[in-house]
Amino acid sequence: MTRRIAQRLQDAGLLPAALPTPVASYLPFVVSGDIVAVSGILPTQSGNLIATGRVGESVSLETAQECARQCAINLLTALARVEDETGRQVTRILRISGFVASAPDFTDQHKVMNGASDFIVNLLGDDFRHSREAVGVVSLPLNAPVEISAWAMLSPDSD
Amino acid sequence: MTRRIAQRLQDAGLLPAALPTPVASYLPFVVSGDIVAVSGILPTQSGNLIATGRVGESVSLETAQECARQCAINLLTALARVEDETGRQVTRILRISGFVASAPDFTDQHKVMNGASDFIVNLLGDDFRHSREAVGVVSLPLNAPVEISAWAMLSPDSD
Amino acid sequence: MTRRIAQRLQDAGLLPAALPTPVASYLPFVVSGDIVAVSGILPTQSGNLIATGRVGESVSLETAQECARQCAINLLTALARVEDETGRQVTRILRISGFVASAPDFTDQHKVMNGASDFIVNLLGDDFRHSREAVGVVSLPLNAPVEISAWAMLSPDSD
Repeated sequence: MTRRIAQRLQDAGLLPAALPTPVASYLPFVVSGDIVAVSGILPTQSGNLIATGRVGESVSLETAQECARQCAINLLTALARVEDETGRQVTRILRISGFVASAPDFTDQHKVMNGASDFIVNLLGDDFRHSREAVGVVSLPLNAPVEISAWAMLSPDSD
Repeated sequence: MTRRIAQRLQDAGLLPAALPTPVASYLPFVVSGDIVAVSGILPTQSGNLIATGRVGESVSLETAQECARQCAINLLTALARVEDETGRQVTRILRISGFVASAPDFTDQHKVMNGASDFIVNLLGDDFRHSREAVGVVSLPLNAPVEISAWAMLSPDSD
Repeated sequence: MTRRIAQRLQDAGLLPAALPTPVASYLPFVVSGDIVAVSGILPTQSGNLIATGRVGESVSLETAQECARQCAINLLTALARVEDETGRQVTRILRISGFVASAPDFTDQHKVMNGASDFIVNLLGDDFRHSREAVGVVSLPLNAPVEISAWAMLSPDSD
């Protein structure tokens, strides 16, 4: 079944979600050979950010974790579209990179990013455990609290 | 034609450009199999940064976009050298990562990075649309306003 | 010899080192095909950070370089484990990404990262020169001064 991710999102009541439109002149994802590069994704829902600001200032850890989870939903929505467009299956997530807009004294970026990692693994299983970066940045596009990008692998082309 | 990028840069009056020398003990790019990893590149021209400082403080959005464009010129210069050294063609840019030295209240990193993305696509065409990260960092090497790194794919080795 | 990295670490008196435990629900590394993605690694030794704080404030350049070197030791420890688990050899490091927790006026992130790059090349030789990102971030997990992630390539699978 190549549309596994879409099915799992649907089972969790999270589909159909609209894939966020890039806020600039780039692509939401690129497929080349077996590799998928997914652009930095913001925590939008129906086109609007679910929160804005810096974690440790106007944004709480709990809200930031919700933002990371929403980024992960949008990431999986992108990967579901990759499966749909290519007829191939996403077999692994190699890396997710988490950029957390942080107050200078906020040092729990890893806890924020668990909101994404835990969601992905709970939905798709242990095969979707991944490597990860989590860093605290001063600001993000549109004043988003979290931005997540990813690299994934596809099953071999049937051609 | 394997030297497409060099030709396009030359057509635009942007060659011969010197490839920026890494400011430390690393390589400007690494080729392994079909993959090219390009190091973080600063907005230098003839060896000098075209601006310094943080966007939203001493650097305007317009200047930052010029910096992103200059990073993209330097990136394509590096990819032109890859084509020259390998005799292979760069077929895709998978990802560009844009780090923008940002004042805390500057949240238009995506607009800065359009200075790079638009330049690349205008010069090389829609096949060179790419995935992207854009984040706001507190500072960059040599007080540069922008740093851009990239991943690209090469045509199969003819061996 | 597939266990080259472990041997070199041992020769340098740096083994057996414990691989740092991820501080959250992700993997220290992922192998897929010939590609290895290594998670962001902090400068821990025997489970404790060797320093905390921002470079240019409570952390000196020299201490930050030591932190980058410790991250590199932990990175090579992870790659030694990859060699051990897969029976394959790490042939290249494609990219190391260095995130340096920085005071706003600290702009020597590249010098910090030389602490990692120089260590790797001195230990493993010129074949392990790599592409690199070096950026200044506002804060990192657990108040670490440096976080380094990496991408590497493995020798072809013997199967």
